[in-house]
Amino acid sequence: MLERLRAALPPNAVLTDPDILATHARDEAGLCEAGTPAVLVRPENTEQVAAVIRVAAETGTPVVTQGARTGLSGAANAIDGCVLLSTQAMNKIIEIDPVNRIAVVQPGVVNAAVSRAAAEHGLRYAPDPGSFESSTIGGNVATNAGGMCCVKYGVTTEYVLELEVVLASGEVMTCGRRTAKGVAGYDLVRLFCGSEGTLGVITRIVLKLQPIPRQALTLAAVFPSTTDAGAAVTAITAAGSVPSLLELIDDVHLRAIEDYRPMGLDTSAAALLLAASDSGVEADLDEIAALCEEAGATEVYRATDATEADALLAARRLAYPAIERLGTVIVDDVAVPRSRLAEALDGVAATARRHGVKIGVIAHAGDGNLHPNIIVDSADPDSVSAGRAAFDDIMRMALDMGGTCTGEHGVGLLKRDWLADEAGPIAMAVQRSIKDALDPLGILNPGKVL
Amino acid sequence: MLERLRAALPPNAVLTDPDILATHARDEAGLCEAGTPAVLVRPENTEQVAAVIRVAAETGTPVVTQGARTGLSGAANAIDGCVLLSTQAMNKIIEIDPVNRIAVVQPGVVNAAVSRAAAEHGLRYAPDPGSFESSTIGGNVATNAGGMCCVKYGVTTEYVLELEVVLASGEVMTCGRRTAKGVAGYDLVRLFCGSEGTLGVITRIVLKLQPIPRQALTLAAVFPSTTDAGAAVTAITAAGSVPSLLELIDDVHLRAIEDYRPMGLDTSAAALLLAASDSGVEADLDEIAALCEEAGATEVYRATDATEADALLAARRLAYPAIERLGTVIVDDVAVPRSRLAEALDGVAATARRHGVKIGVIAHAGDGNLHPNIIVDSADPDSVSAGRAAFDDIMRMALDMGGTCTGEHGVGLLKRDWLADEAGPIAMAVQRSIKDALDPLGILNPGKVL
Repeated sequence: MLERLRAALPPNAVLTDPDILATHARDEAGLCEAGTPAVLVRPENTEQVAAVIRVAAETGTPVVTQGARTGLSGAANAIDGCVLLSTQAMNKIIEIDPVNRIAVVQPGVVNAAVSRAAAEHGLRYAPDPGSFESSTIGGNVATNAGGMCCVKYGVTTEYVLELEVVLASGEVMTCGRRTAKGVAGYDLVRLFCGSEGTLGVITRIVLKLQPIPRQALTLAAVFPSTTDAGAAVTAITAAGSVPSLLELIDDVHLRAIEDYRPMGLDTSAAALLLAASDSGVEADLDEIAALCEEAGATEVYRATDATEADALLAARRLAYPAIERLGTVIVDDVAVPRSRLAEALDGVAATARRHGVKIGVIAHAGDGNLHPNIIVDSADPDSVSAGRAAFDDIMRMALDMGGTCTGEHGVGLLKRDWLADEAGPIAMAVQRSIKDALDPLGILNPGKVL
Repeated sequence: MLERLRAALPPNAVLTDPDILATHARDEAGLCEAGTPAVLVRPENTEQVAAVIRVAAETGTPVVTQGARTGLSGAANAIDGCVLLSTQAMNKIIEIDPVNRIAVVQPGVVNAAVSRAAAEHGLRYAPDPGSFESSTIGGNVATNAGGMCCVKYGVTTEYVLELEVVLASGEVMTCGRRTAKGVAGYDLVRLFCGSEGTLGVITRIVLKLQPIPRQALTLAAVFPSTTDAGAAVTAITAAGSVPSLLELIDDVHLRAIEDYRPMGLDTSAAALLLAASDSGVEADLDEIAALCEEAGATEVYRATDATEADALLAARRLAYPAIERLGTVIVDDVAVPRSRLAEALDGVAATARRHGVKIGVIAHAGDGNLHPNIIVDSADPDSVSAGRAAFDDIMRMALDMGGTCTGEHGVGLLKRDWLADEAGPIAMAVQRSIKDALDPLGILNPGKVL
């Protein structure tokens, strides 16, 4: 196999150094096992990807496609003896078309690079996962990444118009279209979005861009209890308000952020709600402020300019690096119906008490998408075991509330059993039949998702 | 088969009267053949649908699912000896949940009925196909219907959260979820959206509702040439403007509408552009008005109140009934990149001259989605033949421009060959493999789409 890969690819694109392989064996998911890869390949174009897949198909070798390995579900983790296919050498922005508002990119382009290129034309690429400065568009599409803008602007799949994909056969397929609308045939683009490398290797992506929204007006509301904060979110949604951002930071994260980078956050609060409106209508943020106060906010602080607003968002973006300093973090990701956010926050707190572990929660509150971050001592098996039990309890709670085991991080290895639980045997059989139809030899990221 | 259907369904739900069957044999597509159905069934719930599908599977009978038969591609046309499965007895709105902004409906509910029910909570169901007062949500989902709001708010698939589907096996699957976000497993919801009854029978739909937007400000701009009108659309898009409506009516339609319902439209204009903005920021419509004037509009008329704005939209909605009075209308539906709208309009005009047929165009201009309506004399074979040739030429032109053979009406019977041309053999093989995986006996609307 190595011989054939070397024959098909440039000299520096086939790597077998054990240190390099070890570095590339896993993404950022905790709790997930990773195997030992046979080789790392770094193809530079679609033809080279197709050559890799043909070699894999002919030798029955599993292929694990990787972007920046910032994923949180183990989807990019190595399988014993696999080919790791890195898209990082395919990092060109091929075209920005401002009139049709599209960007044509290779999969290894970093998310933020697209918005930077589009900004010259007054446009942006909306989806903004926490990893936007490092994760790749290919990975974003493969996991259908979310972010803070989703509450108003939706997730990755809403922004993918056309895909070029190398199939399990090594054939190159283009699906979707560059027009704003189109309903010709099955929606293969959306099938590949979120399929985590199990159906094909994405080699070119046509993204929908959008005009850069107006400067958002931003506020921070301090709540004495998570129940009150949850009630505020429910009230904002029920009032028909359309915030461009609605994020919750709990007390554990507030204290961790303030310790990490002191900025005057109220660490006595039970929760901070960040809300923004980019509608251009000032009354819209007034309404959100009033609803926060009615729900029991003890203080509502409005950013007076863009710099202050950016500082509030920067605090939110520090939540993960800040909490990582407290121990090993098991990042969870569940979504519940928005109306049950407060109840879910209470449930997480009860889970933490029950298992004697510390859990902080940040939430894309407007979407009902919670990230309970479970802090464990990786050197203490009892602590890890308690963390895992809490992780499972939180997932069970989300499903019992009519929610989902993953709002935006994906299934990968981490949540295969939970997906089966959530989807049920009939929908799982349909997914399996699609997988088998598109990858009959089972070479594409086998054992992930399903 | 009839015996078994009668055993499984209520007495009045199995119809074999030839007149009734003839009435239900086709949708509103011109140019499409329809077969003779064996029976029409009107199940009242999911269990009855499943029973019908089990009978069909066991007897190898094709099943054609129908909503209101307002489709324009022949997808709902009968196949010889088929079971016509009408969803019209499944027309209940099961739930409106204003906090989570969802509606749970049966497939036979009429589109406009959802928005009427949601309006009591300040919400609406956004997608608004021309048939919104008669077409069903099940049909809208099966064809991934569009409408006038798409330019800002997207198409049906963006508003479907969860589906209950009876599969070809008769099993009942639920896919998707009621949360605002979720990435657990393959996106089966979007696979079923637009699959035109070929993969399953949709029996329950959870729709995303949205707050009713602010009252839109509306203008009508009169252009001396379609090229100028197309240039205005391009300029509006390129400027980063986000109109909530951007529709074009050509001279053929303007005259037909004014003849049908005189309302003072300028019938000497080559094209009328209707634009609206519901951002709540008045300057946004000012910008659109200025761009229309710069592009050569001879008059820009702004509606002074909601009544006037509604009158302008009513004129647009009369385009189809008005033009139907001129002859038999072959409705086409192509989309091109927005930047090529003017070129496409010129191409349609050239096609009309070349074939000696009259073609009027209405367009969801902001989406690059054109409806060239070809007017023929159905009693004159030469006229019909010229109309068909023009229809094909328009499709060829759209594909040559990087467009699609159907922007929102679907493939059905009408555009199967064009889909194959547009998608190419590899993407067609993938679609076929999915169809075979989900419907191995080929009983679900066989011969449609693929």
